[in-house]
Amino acid sequence: MHGLMMNMPLMISALLKHADQNHGDAEIVSRTVEGGIHRYTYRAAHQRCRRLANALRALGVQPGERVATLAWNGYRHFEIYFAVSGMGAVMHTINPRLFPEQLVYIVNHAEDSYVFFDLTFLPLVEALADKSPKVKGWVAMTDREHMPQSKVKLLCYEELLAAQSDDYEWPVFDENTASSLCYTSGTTGNPKGVLYSHRSTILHAYGAALPDALNMSARDCVLPVVPMFHVNAWSIPYSGALTGCKIVFPGPQLDGKSVYELFEQEKVSLSAGVPTVWMGLLAHMKQNGLRFSTLKRTVIGGSACPPAMIRSFQDEYGVQVLHAWGMTEMSPLGTVTTFKLKHDGMSKAEREALQYKQGRVIFGVEMKIVDDGGKDLPWDGTAFGNLMVRGPWITSGYFKAEGGNPLKDGWFPTGDVATIDADGYMQITDRSKDVIKSGGEWISSIDLENLAVAHPAVQEAAVIGVRHPKWDERPLLIVVKKKDAQVTKEELLKFYEGKIAKWWMPDDVAFVDSLPHTATGKLLKTKLREDFLNYKLPSA
Amino acid sequence: MHGLMMNMPLMISALLKHADQNHGDAEIVSRTVEGGIHRYTYRAAHQRCRRLANALRALGVQPGERVATLAWNGYRHFEIYFAVSGMGAVMHTINPRLFPEQLVYIVNHAEDSYVFFDLTFLPLVEALADKSPKVKGWVAMTDREHMPQSKVKLLCYEELLAAQSDDYEWPVFDENTASSLCYTSGTTGNPKGVLYSHRSTILHAYGAALPDALNMSARDCVLPVVPMFHVNAWSIPYSGALTGCKIVFPGPQLDGKSVYELFEQEKVSLSAGVPTVWMGLLAHMKQNGLRFSTLKRTVIGGSACPPAMIRSFQDEYGVQVLHAWGMTEMSPLGTVTTFKLKHDGMSKAEREALQYKQGRVIFGVEMKIVDDGGKDLPWDGTAFGNLMVRGPWITSGYFKAEGGNPLKDGWFPTGDVATIDADGYMQITDRSKDVIKSGGEWISSIDLENLAVAHPAVQEAAVIGVRHPKWDERPLLIVVKKKDAQVTKEELLKFYEGKIAKWWMPDDVAFVDSLPHTATGKLLKTKLREDFLNYKLPSA
Repeated sequence: MHGLMMNMPLMISALLKHADQNHGDAEIVSRTVEGGIHRYTYRAAHQRCRRLANALRALGVQPGERVATLAWNGYRHFEIYFAVSGMGAVMHTINPRLFPEQLVYIVNHAEDSYVFFDLTFLPLVEALADKSPKVKGWVAMTDREHMPQSKVKLLCYEELLAAQSDDYEWPVFDENTASSLCYTSGTTGNPKGVLYSHRSTILHAYGAALPDALNMSARDCVLPVVPMFHVNAWSIPYSGALTGCKIVFPGPQLDGKSVYELFEQEKVSLSAGVPTVWMGLLAHMKQNGLRFSTLKRTVIGGSACPPAMIRSFQDEYGVQVLHAWGMTEMSPLGTVTTFKLKHDGMSKAEREALQYKQGRVIFGVEMKIVDDGGKDLPWDGTAFGNLMVRGPWITSGYFKAEGGNPLKDGWFPTGDVATIDADGYMQITDRSKDVIKSGGEWISSIDLENLAVAHPAVQEAAVIGVRHPKWDERPLLIVVKKKDAQVTKEELLKFYEGKIAKWWMPDDVAFVDSLPHTATGKLLKTKLREDFLNYKLPSA
Repeated sequence: MHGLMMNMPLMISALLKHADQNHGDAEIVSRTVEGGIHRYTYRAAHQRCRRLANALRALGVQPGERVATLAWNGYRHFEIYFAVSGMGAVMHTINPRLFPEQLVYIVNHAEDSYVFFDLTFLPLVEALADKSPKVKGWVAMTDREHMPQSKVKLLCYEELLAAQSDDYEWPVFDENTASSLCYTSGTTGNPKGVLYSHRSTILHAYGAALPDALNMSARDCVLPVVPMFHVNAWSIPYSGALTGCKIVFPGPQLDGKSVYELFEQEKVSLSAGVPTVWMGLLAHMKQNGLRFSTLKRTVIGGSACPPAMIRSFQDEYGVQVLHAWGMTEMSPLGTVTTFKLKHDGMSKAEREALQYKQGRVIFGVEMKIVDDGGKDLPWDGTAFGNLMVRGPWITSGYFKAEGGNPLKDGWFPTGDVATIDADGYMQITDRSKDVIKSGGEWISSIDLENLAVAHPAVQEAAVIGVRHPKWDERPLLIVVKKKDAQVTKEELLKFYEGKIAKWWMPDDVAFVDSLPHTATGKLLKTKLREDFLNYKLPSA
């Protein structure tokens, strides 16, 4: 027997209508690519989204068709988010930081019909245009005055809008309809597309706004530093409209000075971004003896937040850090570190130690850790295993079935290795591919690397598993020394003593001039494993 | 084209699993009917829910079957909430405050197979048993030691559980499946059943927990005074499990002293209830010169919160009032009064004036006001019209199609008349049936009543529309004088001068000894309209 509740599908367009009706004069402020600050309201944004939907219809865009963006965080990108999904097409955000050959692959694989781009990315567009035969139009996200000269025939965003009426009714359709697409950039193989739905986006937006997640309300002013070209800017455009908060888009300028000035000018209360950006911001603040006058909380994710950064935000600047974890395949939010009632009265050191972890799940995400045989491991904060997740905003497979079915018994393998403690706080200890399997036991390469870089002579360190006749694999520490620093293998191994279990001790140390990295700056361990494939350990 | 997200239906059992896994040691504390305090954890609750699900299965309860409760807020009621819905049956909460003939009607109309009851309600059960031939069993929610003597054959809750294992896997099924049932007690006709689904319950639980609604987190200790027998205790059992907060159930003792003591003993941070309960609490606090040491926020709904109560909580006790509005047909939450960024810097008086309104919608609820022809009225804070709502947690019709299709063009008519201001804050001005329609214009009976009771000689007042040959209807003020007080018609009408538009002035005043009320204490205006059907106004 069914309940007797209204059959109202969860639609992305409903977020925008809600924001217009209930928060019509709340502001959306953008630092533009052309220069200067643009400000308008949810009501004006909704009006322009309706114009854009009419423009897309006039261009012949059909339901399900992919429309791409190469753009910074700004109001036009926000409009494309809502207009494309709202009309039933698929909003495809492209990460412009990928390698050119990856971009060509992505545009062709997605079969994007139109690509909207910020002026910054004209050179990219010019490089892509010849190689993207299915793209029917390249739309410069600017007005006529700022239209650039180009060998590529360009459409002008503001002209498209100006030609249309704002009379448009958002269609209502199956909530499982695809709404948006984002490619993951793995370290191996081609990028794979994650295809979100209206349902997953709305459920995720509810989850993200909760007090124990981003804690967003109509009293907030939120500045997403995390780019809209990367996993939905952690839902801030959607949760923003859901809550009616003020949104501030930083545009292309993500240096410490620019971000700080925008925080202060616009009275930002909440921000979100990756550690690299915060590093620049904190350095700028320290150099200039600055203080935040309105910032209360900042969400840090994308990669593990260094403990020193948590302490700096909280102790020096009085800004609460929300350490978070997620994946493109998870819309992206999975866990956030927020405290519980039972933590009242905890010491500062204990609270910080908890904050080093990636946090506990938002309702809607389930997780577990398993060994290589798929057996559940205990939530004791010590056992570490492959982290698996499931839930209504987690991917069930990739666009065009690339890579086949990624699920194991209905769970998505994150590729991370983690511990989970009895209170549900998860901590990433390694990537599944990088964990070292020695005699049936696992050794965390990340733990060994973190310890190594604490040595004063070490610039950068990587630890990989090298084949061993008896133990299957044993750890090898690979080190880049600091300029002019001297250190021996023996000194480095000595440095580990007392800090790790004896059997975790690397079997050898190799000194190199540099380590290989991915386009987004991550250690490329696949390359290291190739380079050290036949490395002979002294113990072997 | 569908998105590629996991097809995970929204299940009530997932809330309980989430709370067990991630907040296993968070407490659920209950003041029991038998006497004393019971405390356990979400983990223990989940274990007992699994036992109860096995017990229900052993009793032969089938999916879709209705299982009823006559119970206070307590841990066993919480278990029945989750076990009955979780196994796929329908949890039917009965309001024991209804008239006996209504209770008989409800139990038979719902075709309840089992009725679980707190010992308080044994006399009710004994009155109902003979008249409820379809009930297969009456389960006393207690242990063997406390089992009462009765002419009705009773089952013992704790014995049912003790006989079962806790090995039970919650089934996964269509999220639109009916989960729970609650009858509305209208002022006319038989009560009608609102049938919630797993989907509506989960979406509502997300909405209720948001920062701009009840703002619930794992750092809260929440005491729902609002009864679990009445519209899901405003979602607190569900949103509680969703957030992992501590829950405190007050049991049968809702007097000011008992509630206050529980607040203090259990360090409650958030509570929720109707104005009547808060009246008792505030009186107790004032008499005894008490303070709250942990309470931060309280949600007040069910009927309009008197301005003096808002001021008392906020100014005298430092407790933030969240004025809220909803209906059984709305799961129940529709609006909550919380501030926006734009209200920073508002004066205290302005903030209070805003709080007298019932608030703005939670995302998931849409509202509009229309005239009798169905035409949209402006959101200007002045125009008032029939309040219509729609959304995924709003009823589309009543159980067994009683009363036919209640919707108008897909919107649910709330039966309230309201204004909505430009910021989306709604204020109830009357019931649709009670608004007085004079010469095509509407006059709010509630406004006139509120003014009348401010007169020192008036104990209680009602204003109804009486037929008028020229104006269709004109207002008649009906007054119960305070004991030993004297006041004339002329003095009362004079009292209105300058406070209302001239054409709102009642045409006459009738003095009566008492006014008729419903079982739940509301003014029974249908009866008044009957009594004054042929009343001759001096102007007619």
